[in-house]
Amino acid sequence: MSMDRLLEQIVKKNNPTVAGLDPKLEYVPQFIREEAFAKYGNTLKGASKALLAFNKGLIDALYDIVPAIKPQCAYYEMYGYHGMKTLYKTMEYAKKKGMIVITDGKRNDIGTTMEAYAKGHLGKTMVNGEAISAFPGDCLTVNGYLGSDGIRPLLSICKEEDKGILVLVKTSNPSSGELQDQKIDGKPIYEVMGQMCETWGEELPGKYGYSGVGAVVGATYPEMLEELRAKMPHTFFLVPGYGAQGGGAKDVSYAFDKNGLGAIVNSSRGIMCAYQKGDWQEQDYAKAARAEALRMRDDIIGAIAQMHL
Amino acid sequence: MSMDRLLEQIVKKNNPTVAGLDPKLEYVPQFIREEAFAKYGNTLKGASKALLAFNKGLIDALYDIVPAIKPQCAYYEMYGYHGMKTLYKTMEYAKKKGMIVITDGKRNDIGTTMEAYAKGHLGKTMVNGEAISAFPGDCLTVNGYLGSDGIRPLLSICKEEDKGILVLVKTSNPSSGELQDQKIDGKPIYEVMGQMCETWGEELPGKYGYSGVGAVVGATYPEMLEELRAKMPHTFFLVPGYGAQGGGAKDVSYAFDKNGLGAIVNSSRGIMCAYQKGDWQEQDYAKAARAEALRMRDDIIGAIAQMHL
Repeated sequence: MSMDRLLEQIVKKNNPTVAGLDPKLEYVPQFIREEAFAKYGNTLKGASKALLAFNKGLIDALYDIVPAIKPQCAYYEMYGYHGMKTLYKTMEYAKKKGMIVITDGKRNDIGTTMEAYAKGHLGKTMVNGEAISAFPGDCLTVNGYLGSDGIRPLLSICKEEDKGILVLVKTSNPSSGELQDQKIDGKPIYEVMGQMCETWGEELPGKYGYSGVGAVVGATYPEMLEELRAKMPHTFFLVPGYGAQGGGAKDVSYAFDKNGLGAIVNSSRGIMCAYQKGDWQEQDYAKAARAEALRMRDDIIGAIAQMHL
Repeated sequence: MSMDRLLEQIVKKNNPTVAGLDPKLEYVPQFIREEAFAKYGNTLKGASKALLAFNKGLIDALYDIVPAIKPQCAYYEMYGYHGMKTLYKTMEYAKKKGMIVITDGKRNDIGTTMEAYAKGHLGKTMVNGEAISAFPGDCLTVNGYLGSDGIRPLLSICKEEDKGILVLVKTSNPSSGELQDQKIDGKPIYEVMGQMCETWGEELPGKYGYSGVGAVVGATYPEMLEELRAKMPHTFFLVPGYGAQGGGAKDVSYAFDKNGLGAIVNSSRGIMCAYQKGDWQEQDYAKAARAEALRMRDDIIGAIAQMHL
């Protein structure tokens, strides 16, 4: 299952972090933007070409030290189908460099419609007898509000294709508690959702103890991370909220098991905009991203080691 | 707000139904598919061109009698960026014909990321000073699991652009109850979510009593439809589940208020595949769709009238 491949990459690179590629146009260095707009005009195509050039530069600087990228669909979709082409090309480029691709789409629907998302993002689309990969992700984030009917179509495709999903359990935003912390028979909803992940995961067991059904749990709620880590022993965690959103290395360390595995921590803005801090020239944005990725790796690896002292 | 424009179209056409455009390739008549594959090969582009031709034929046959279309993003996304181009072209074509476009994306995220979805689907994307519409929808379906942070960015864009959202409250699938029917302090989650819709809607009041924040409530749970109609007097309902999923006209009639308004009922397969039933030739798929749309309109209008006898 896909979490196995992700875990192998994490161990190989000794780095449990993922580079979030959520490229707002204002994050893209000016020289890249100017070149794209000169060539394609002030168009969605021009913007999408700028994003792609930026992403490729980041991937070139990160692929040997960072196990995975996490492109956030929203930042591509907002540039229309040109943006979706950049999403595809970014994924394809990262895959060629040996990175794992986590598609952050938070997709959700039921039955055959969810199957369409599953085929599009994790499987193959059949076209007159040809099986084609529409978007070549390894993992897809999904929202479980619709229940098992929304998740089961993903499981069979994950099994066939050696892919995985990450279900929203406890998100990193301030208002996540409005629904997720409400209690059902004394149990918060995030815990109920977490239990559903453990159950769905039984269909996709992994060789390192983590199933193909992972969970999204925010770094901004460290006490819940710790609680959920204990209650969801077979569920791999994707942890957003480190850095810009306020989570620190100690906070995220609670997501890891006693072997220092079981989670991957995301940083988007911190890596993409590293060149905007300190004395970097914008031409050196990729170098700055690499330096920040190494700092983040050491910060988190250090906190995990500390936890087990 | 957008619900006003939708309500006006419903009243004008005396038809509270929406044509779901969820075009699986096998729904497309063979002569359309053959032409596209001959021209573009067995490719995602070929498939996407076939879907577009099919959709345009349907829109031509429906636009004067049906107020709105509801394209389901999953069935476009599974054909990659070519599919997303077909989604865009379909929306643009329907808008030109005066139809309201409900984008069924069930999108969800937080803060600036949700804002990116909101701009992409309901607002404008800024590109070097130009404001461009990436996908020209009037309404977007969204998932509220993340709480207010995931909804607020939509409200401000809806206000500026005269657009609306439809929040998943009680979905039509068999397992929707796994989470949605669970009780928080004696209240089912779907009711809590419904209450959140009423609250969010206060920011987008409409001139006919319905706010710019609507709800998705499935036809397959008529007793909950009736209950929610009473408890959510300012919330417009999108009702899936009629026809293929098992909901009948009497079931959906509970979604309407005493004026016979306040909801729109979706049919996808029933309309798209009407030509596959009875004695139709596949060349007449659009005529068959029109006949089914008229039958559905009369079926539902009849049931609403019956309810008020």
